[in-house]
Amino acid sequence: MSLIIKPTEIEKKSFEIITQELGERTFPAGQSEVVKRVIHTTADFDYADNLCFSEDAIASAKQALTQGATIVTDTNMALSGINKNILAELGGTARCFMAEPEVARIAKERGVTRAVVSMEYASRMEGNLIFAIGNAPTALIRLHELIQEGVCKPALVVGVPVGFVNVVESKELFLGGSTPYIIARGRKGGSNVAAAIINAIEYQLVKREGF
Amino acid sequence: MSLIIKPTEIEKKSFEIITQELGERTFPAGQSEVVKRVIHTTADFDYADNLCFSEDAIASAKQALTQGATIVTDTNMALSGINKNILAELGGTARCFMAEPEVARIAKERGVTRAVVSMEYASRMEGNLIFAIGNAPTALIRLHELIQEGVCKPALVVGVPVGFVNVVESKELFLGGSTPYIIARGRKGGSNVAAAIINAIEYQLVKREGF
Repeated sequence: MSLIIKPTEIEKKSFEIITQELGERTFPAGQSEVVKRVIHTTADFDYADNLCFSEDAIASAKQALTQGATIVTDTNMALSGINKNILAELGGTARCFMAEPEVARIAKERGVTRAVVSMEYASRMEGNLIFAIGNAPTALIRLHELIQEGVCKPALVVGVPVGFVNVVESKELFLGGSTPYIIARGRKGGSNVAAAIINAIEYQLVKREGF
Repeated sequence: MSLIIKPTEIEKKSFEIITQELGERTFPAGQSEVVKRVIHTTADFDYADNLCFSEDAIASAKQALTQGATIVTDTNMALSGINKNILAELGGTARCFMAEPEVARIAKERGVTRAVVSMEYASRMEGNLIFAIGNAPTALIRLHELIQEGVCKPALVVGVPVGFVNVVESKELFLGGSTPYIIARGRKGGSNVAAAIINAIEYQLVKREGF
């Protein structure tokens, strides 16, 4: 089997196939790269329909990233999928508080999820904050409350938890709101989708081999 | 919004919804848990159709895991998603060689992917091996060659790379073969799917709160 070709060539060819199969569907500049990278990550064209962007989402995220931003995830898996080399080049960092022993202890004491406590931790951080939530609807719900209370003002909320309970409702909270958002409406999403969205924005800001 | 309930309750309710929506579809014991956990991870019911199991896949993986197995992934993201606490309880470990500097150096010298070199490294390990490939078709292709050459004899190959180039073909290599396999036919899959499949087998072997 003589299939093995350069990773950059594979990625380029993949994006060509995705663009071709999207046919006459077009997306605004900046958003298009996000939609295609999510399809690249999932092979699922449903994301062409379910990804919703606030008008300022891409511009706000790019501004924050070029100034040096902290990206907060709700899983170590999303953290693991984010391109942290390019993020570091841009002067940013990525954090996940889910596995911190203190977060687990406080969550247990209060009878809430670790995701809730993680968001409270993250919301008190200084500087530009971008949230990438691919798993826990409770993270998204608590984050929405913290924004309403004026505790934080994220440059972008990526809200793409996946699942069957609380998920759809948690995402709807952000739609049409004043916080810049990228939301996958419905049940679908995931840590891989959250990471892909962040990477798609990062890649627009740097020279990168391949696509 | 009074949505927040216990994580174990959310998981239980989610599996009830999945079972209900699968309707009259049934799967053999052991496979059913895998199919449902992958749907739980992706909210994508396509996996009810595209997951293919060799007859001995679940039994072989369970035997290896109870004896203490090494799970080899092709991404740090899949490694991150595998429940390593339960794996450790079972006497096993999980490894990913993709970020090893030596792997990168050798891959560059030989003009192959890091995934290829990772598989060569992993195939020389002693003990029970389970491969969880959620990203690189080149990993799956090289692994198939190594098995054909008698270099290793995995207890299970989880072959669920995602994508548009080489992916479908790399998976077809294993279908109907003598190596125990769980393959997601077609383009879909991912590191999250690979981790979910491993976790679904682990959870069958231990008492676990919730589902």
